[in-house]
Amino acid sequence: MRILLRLISSSSTGHHFRAGLSSRHQLSAQLSTLIHPLKSHSPPMAATEDSLRKALAEKQSAVEGQGNAVRALKAAKVSKAEIDAAIGTLNALKLEKSSIEKQLQAVVSGNGPDSSVSKEAFRQAVVNTLERRLFYIPSFKIYRGVAGLYDYGPPGCAVKSNVLAFWRQHFVLEENMLEVDCPCVTPEVVLKASGHVDKFTDLMVKDEKTGTCYRADHLLKDFCNEKLQKDLSITAEKAAELKHVLAVLDDLSAEELGAKIKEYGIVAPDTKNPLSDPYPFNLMFQTSIGPSGLIPGYMRPETAQGIFVNFKDLYYYNGNKLPFAAAQIGQAFRNEISPRQGLLRVREFTLAEIEHFVDPEDKSHPKYPEVADLEFLMFPREEQMSGQSAKRIRLGEAVSKGIVNNETLGYFIGRVYLFLTRLGIDKKRLRFRQHLANEMAHYAADCWDAEIECSYGWIECVGIADRSAYDLRAHSEKSGVPLVAHEKFSEPREVEKLVIAPVKKELGLAFKGNQKMVVEALEAMNEKEAMEMKASLETKGEVEFYVCTLEKNVCIKKNMVTISKEKKKEHQRVFTPSVIEPSFGIGRIIYCLFEHSFYTRPSKAGDEQLNVFQFPPLVAPIKCTVFPLVQNQQYEEVAKVISRSLTAAGISHKIDITGTSIGKRYARTDELGVPFAITVDSTSSVTIRERDSKDQIRVNVEEAASVVKSVTDGQRTWDDVWSNFPHHSSGTTED
Amino acid sequence: MRILLRLISSSSTGHHFRAGLSSRHQLSAQLSTLIHPLKSHSPPMAATEDSLRKALAEKQSAVEGQGNAVRALKAAKVSKAEIDAAIGTLNALKLEKSSIEKQLQAVVSGNGPDSSVSKEAFRQAVVNTLERRLFYIPSFKIYRGVAGLYDYGPPGCAVKSNVLAFWRQHFVLEENMLEVDCPCVTPEVVLKASGHVDKFTDLMVKDEKTGTCYRADHLLKDFCNEKLQKDLSITAEKAAELKHVLAVLDDLSAEELGAKIKEYGIVAPDTKNPLSDPYPFNLMFQTSIGPSGLIPGYMRPETAQGIFVNFKDLYYYNGNKLPFAAAQIGQAFRNEISPRQGLLRVREFTLAEIEHFVDPEDKSHPKYPEVADLEFLMFPREEQMSGQSAKRIRLGEAVSKGIVNNETLGYFIGRVYLFLTRLGIDKKRLRFRQHLANEMAHYAADCWDAEIECSYGWIECVGIADRSAYDLRAHSEKSGVPLVAHEKFSEPREVEKLVIAPVKKELGLAFKGNQKMVVEALEAMNEKEAMEMKASLETKGEVEFYVCTLEKNVCIKKNMVTISKEKKKEHQRVFTPSVIEPSFGIGRIIYCLFEHSFYTRPSKAGDEQLNVFQFPPLVAPIKCTVFPLVQNQQYEEVAKVISRSLTAAGISHKIDITGTSIGKRYARTDELGVPFAITVDSTSSVTIRERDSKDQIRVNVEEAASVVKSVTDGQRTWDDVWSNFPHHSSGTTED
Repeated sequence: MRILLRLISSSSTGHHFRAGLSSRHQLSAQLSTLIHPLKSHSPPMAATEDSLRKALAEKQSAVEGQGNAVRALKAAKVSKAEIDAAIGTLNALKLEKSSIEKQLQAVVSGNGPDSSVSKEAFRQAVVNTLERRLFYIPSFKIYRGVAGLYDYGPPGCAVKSNVLAFWRQHFVLEENMLEVDCPCVTPEVVLKASGHVDKFTDLMVKDEKTGTCYRADHLLKDFCNEKLQKDLSITAEKAAELKHVLAVLDDLSAEELGAKIKEYGIVAPDTKNPLSDPYPFNLMFQTSIGPSGLIPGYMRPETAQGIFVNFKDLYYYNGNKLPFAAAQIGQAFRNEISPRQGLLRVREFTLAEIEHFVDPEDKSHPKYPEVADLEFLMFPREEQMSGQSAKRIRLGEAVSKGIVNNETLGYFIGRVYLFLTRLGIDKKRLRFRQHLANEMAHYAADCWDAEIECSYGWIECVGIADRSAYDLRAHSEKSGVPLVAHEKFSEPREVEKLVIAPVKKELGLAFKGNQKMVVEALEAMNEKEAMEMKASLETKGEVEFYVCTLEKNVCIKKNMVTISKEKKKEHQRVFTPSVIEPSFGIGRIIYCLFEHSFYTRPSKAGDEQLNVFQFPPLVAPIKCTVFPLVQNQQYEEVAKVISRSLTAAGISHKIDITGTSIGKRYARTDELGVPFAITVDSTSSVTIRERDSKDQIRVNVEEAASVVKSVTDGQRTWDDVWSNFPHHSSGTTED
Repeated sequence: MRILLRLISSSSTGHHFRAGLSSRHQLSAQLSTLIHPLKSHSPPMAATEDSLRKALAEKQSAVEGQGNAVRALKAAKVSKAEIDAAIGTLNALKLEKSSIEKQLQAVVSGNGPDSSVSKEAFRQAVVNTLERRLFYIPSFKIYRGVAGLYDYGPPGCAVKSNVLAFWRQHFVLEENMLEVDCPCVTPEVVLKASGHVDKFTDLMVKDEKTGTCYRADHLLKDFCNEKLQKDLSITAEKAAELKHVLAVLDDLSAEELGAKIKEYGIVAPDTKNPLSDPYPFNLMFQTSIGPSGLIPGYMRPETAQGIFVNFKDLYYYNGNKLPFAAAQIGQAFRNEISPRQGLLRVREFTLAEIEHFVDPEDKSHPKYPEVADLEFLMFPREEQMSGQSAKRIRLGEAVSKGIVNNETLGYFIGRVYLFLTRLGIDKKRLRFRQHLANEMAHYAADCWDAEIECSYGWIECVGIADRSAYDLRAHSEKSGVPLVAHEKFSEPREVEKLVIAPVKKELGLAFKGNQKMVVEALEAMNEKEAMEMKASLETKGEVEFYVCTLEKNVCIKKNMVTISKEKKKEHQRVFTPSVIEPSFGIGRIIYCLFEHSFYTRPSKAGDEQLNVFQFPPLVAPIKCTVFPLVQNQQYEEVAKVISRSLTAAGISHKIDITGTSIGKRYARTDELGVPFAITVDSTSSVTIRERDSKDQIRVNVEEAASVVKSVTDGQRTWDDVWSNFPHHSSGTTED
């Protein structure tokens, strides 16, 4: 979940990269040479906007020129007619300028059906409904809450639990994954090895007087967006510069960010006080394990590490066979500097992560053919770089053309697509975006994000990365426990084998107490690294060498190590597996699902708009409501009988015996996304109403629960039921 | 979950009390007057042990006396015959003494089938199997682990997820509870209100030289147990004293504990260094929320507070009606000083908690008749005080006789009994123990623990408490948000109403900036408190008054408040609901289930003992294995077909195509507790084997999955299946 975590904090521009393992700062160094004016996956600067800004500037100087002309004519005391004519021209120019301003304003604030205004209004409607119906609640509300912490109330909690149950069915059960459940409290050594202690940071600035903290990139981003949207007087060049800053925002080093903040004169938003230079703030919640205060620990920022440290046992459990996948669902934590965007950016969240371990020399997948024919929106690197947009591609084609690095990665992309769309995510607002080369950590083979479009833009909800052998190697090195797999040969093979022979005496003299760490690091080199070192030692006699466990470079001299290749007979191959990691931000998926499921429709009287969540039965918090049509003991008895059958069938439901009109009761239940309503209007038969069509059928009391069960379990469709039962005219009951 | 939490730390003696809300120290003050020699729920000192100790002491002095006599005879140089006779007597006495010693040793170490030795061996067998088959694993093992943190490996994780799914079905769904999901990170104010910040502590001592920390009560307990079991020379009086200390261990104040540690000369176990005085250590993991470092937070020690702070919204969600229950499943954390007892005492654990809100004036429950006829082991207060043991009582009788305080509490006791026994907990090793008066917080109406007997003794796994209005009142006071319910009267009623009128001017003069808090506290008094204050003010003119928000007593004078009763017409009653809280330690239940499900049986050849977990299908981590009898492509194809049907039916299963003997494969699967195995020995029909009976039936390939589904879902029993399908003689395949 490194990617997602990163994203949760730093990408609403859609651009982001790995946390911890390859930090913002390392990367920005790599990037400084390749920064291009516009990240092409942010929309290329609209031609109209550009030309409008130029036209506006021209018109502005024309207005100024004409104004000067009018003043000159007045000073020259020419005839009134001449002056009037000049003023007429000036007014016409002003009108033209004002018209261009209006057009520009419309372009930058994005009018039309997708405008930020209507998006904002839509979001407000969704969020109001969600909060009012207790899908979620700001945590600790009676104590005025804590930013970035939310409770799921009863319907939200039910949706979450349905999503997780389906995730278990779709991934763990169908793929025979090994599920584990590890603690949130994690000792420092584990997160030191993973890189989080050193690099899981965001850049922060402080109000120099009050000490209030802000995310440096947020302030810069807000400044640029504000300027672009509200200041029409800036030149096309300035606008391009600001857009460029937005595009490279996540790649800026602390120094570069600080320089921009100074250059633009950005101050603390609340107080207008000056700001400190940006500095890294570690996003993990720190604590201390045990009573001594001597064992630092953190609340895990992702669940993946719990799987990596158990690799050896899990491999054994799987009969020492590859490939296999382990999975974990659990809480993760990040101490956001300033949480925003409601449920999308929170300080505690549920992750569901899969680590699929595979032989790096064979990344085929036996079930790949099952997904190869899926076709959906993909947004490969090439298309992003050349300014195109996402397009529908057949998954099999993407894999065979090498756009997707390998079959296993492709298989998981397909499975994620099926998972999300079966939950109810709109296919048209779901795309798989490939990471640009500069977004990926150096060790990653390929990485795709499932991005879902909502009112906040395209939001990364699942990251699917081929992380190669990085994580297992890091823990092998730090723990000294080999996390490797074996392939037994049916007969011994002659192989050319790399032999790294550290000369301990020389290393001891040079590195004293650190000798052991240097020796281990030398021995852990892969073939490429070792052969490069060999070449360097032969030409230069010495070489800089980074020792992970020492966290610094040391100087290795020619007499300290011999590197050679020898022919050997081998009975097995020992290797570090690659890991392919699909990582799901459950809260983000749920929030997007809320937006995609929400619509409004007029009430029967037409006097108000009613809210509906069109959840599929799979995720609906309550599957069915039971309404006695009128308050009447007989009907209530029937309702209870049906309720008991529903309970026995495991169908979550609710009885509503209030005296309110049946129309109002339907509206209430539509707003919770309940797909079916049983209305008791006789003691022998009842009606079942489907939420979105509002169609009703008539069913015997004894059958009601089993009919609802069959449609909620997906054994039959509503259409099927509709064509097999007598229809009930809704006119009599809907209001 | 206060009770359970408390227990997790401090009770393996079986005695414990509320944390936070009524601290160890407060309580011990109350207790100092009522400490009785032996808590009667620890077994009364065995008569035999007592008389044996006395006999041993007598025999010891007889031996000494006779020894002196022999020496005197020798000094007096009497005849050899006389000396020999005396020595003969001495030797006989020594033999007798030795025989008494042996008897006493047997008594104190508890020989027989229940002896600590065989318990220990049984536990080792269970734990070895659990760890070898990855039911659980010490967390971060490759880094040498962290005490008190465990991972659930694949089968353990599956068991846990099955237990939680059943909990949701049995409680949330069947009772229409409102499930919520709140964060673990909790701001200090919430836990200040609940009492955890001030009182959720254990007493700790430090090695004065090395700084190593120990739980003071653990050291004292270990000392007493060691002395009682290994030192046969102590007198019966001394033994009684040590047992008394064990019985009152949890009630001792820091000073009392310190005094005992000094008196017995207890030193640090590892170094023999002297120990510091005991002092309280807060068991919450502390952290800091946000980047400023100014908002202290904790990892929640229980999930209950998340429900209480949401009471107002949940009450509204429930249509402003009582009773209703809210529920939460989630992680909780306690930073144990020195974790012990494997999965029973850990630093992070899953709780499932219910808060059932009810009108304090009507604690009836509509579904109570459904459980009233259950009969099971109960251990009421009376029986504990009079030294009896738990006995089978009909729940309805316990409620009607007032042993259980009210119907709702009784209902939940019954539901908990059904929950645990359906999971597979042995009825004979499950009892409901009532808290003694001194174990309960002062505000609690009644409290029962579901205790399960395992190799560690009787372990509290579920606490079921009527906590009255305490929690809601505490948060009302601290937050200023009224957490109350309303009962609308059908017609107005004349009531005598308490009127508390603080005289703000006088209070302002006396308490300055604290005036507001004092006023609020005065107004929050209940009738009893107010009338007591009124009486005191009238007699003494002033009174000490504890102000919760100030955390101290203030002196209220007669002129500061008027208290009176007035007759009023009221249209509704406003009251703070009572809460009945069943609180489940999921990890503890699962561990006890492991022990209760484990047995061994000889292999067919009789040369080894095979392990079996007899999990019911409901909790079995894998429901079914599929074995091709021999490695053969046809059979493997059939196995795959069956596997697909099982997946479609949602049945977790595993294919084992290794070439090992079918007997070995059965043994492997028995050890994981898999209830059914399908063996493919033809392409048309297969056998299904039941784990415990080893009985096999023969079924068509097409039917196999649906037969397994019907028995795992509980739609039919194995007996039913057994009588409906042809039997397969197991002789041919079992080995």
